[in-house]
Amino acid sequence: MNPNQIVEILLVEDSPEDLELTQRALRNANLGNHIHVARDGAEALDFIFCEGEYASRRIEDTPKLILLDLKLPKVDGLEVLERIKGDERTRLIPIVVLTSSKEQADVIKSYQLGVNSYIVKPVNFEGFTSAVQELGMYWLLINQPPKLDK
Amino acid sequence: MNPNQIVEILLVEDSPEDLELTQRALRNANLGNHIHVARDGAEALDFIFCEGEYASRRIEDTPKLILLDLKLPKVDGLEVLERIKGDERTRLIPIVVLTSSKEQADVIKSYQLGVNSYIVKPVNFEGFTSAVQELGMYWLLINQPPKLDK
Repeated sequence: MNPNQIVEILLVEDSPEDLELTQRALRNANLGNHIHVARDGAEALDFIFCEGEYASRRIEDTPKLILLDLKLPKVDGLEVLERIKGDERTRLIPIVVLTSSKEQADVIKSYQLGVNSYIVKPVNFEGFTSAVQELGMYWLLINQPPKLDK
Repeated sequence: MNPNQIVEILLVEDSPEDLELTQRALRNANLGNHIHVARDGAEALDFIFCEGEYASRRIEDTPKLILLDLKLPKVDGLEVLERIKGDERTRLIPIVVLTSSKEQADVIKSYQLGVNSYIVKPVNFEGFTSAVQELGMYWLLINQPPKLDK
């Protein structure tokens, strides 16, 4: 990717349907201009830690938000969360888990690993769209992310 | 206070004007039914850790959200944040800092201490009201808080 490209949201999602719904919801709320998609946990880690195909990125160019599914191919979402929140260089980046899992074990584990917020995907289309738009507005327009040294 | 009273938001704010504005904004969005107010950092800690006048509360009865000002009498907001996020019994409670400070030192320090989200108080009335309502909806209706053992 172009190393100068601004990324506001790193969207980590493997389901094509949920990915399409999420991107459309964000676009319709004018929040969709600077999204980068990772389709599995390994690609998400490569993006954040500037490895592999993302070696030309700078680790200081942090997104305002990482939107993270839990059930992911290659590297599981909880492990992605643990790696990012466990590294001094990246642990201040806001991460929201967006998952179909309502399991309290997943909720508690995510908070223990340092997730900023945990959202269960609403099962109907309108609820999903509305939740994605509200979380997008909240984290991009209202929340103040840390400005890491550039 | 009645130990059986449900508290969804612990609102920690010493400014009478900001307190009134925040409560009115939450009430007008139908989010104001279960707010408890602490007027300084010491009272906030007594509430969360069930000490002093709150000795009859149970520490497991955690609010869904702590909305925390930073500049507080008696115990500073950053110290309140550190105490709550540094204690195994309370560190999973979502905390949002709502402050007039735009200082990156406060932003970075808050994230380092484990704040879930940081919001700079908008200076105009409409912006303030709208931000409080959006954060209330997000943390009470969309976010999934951890259900701690009861």
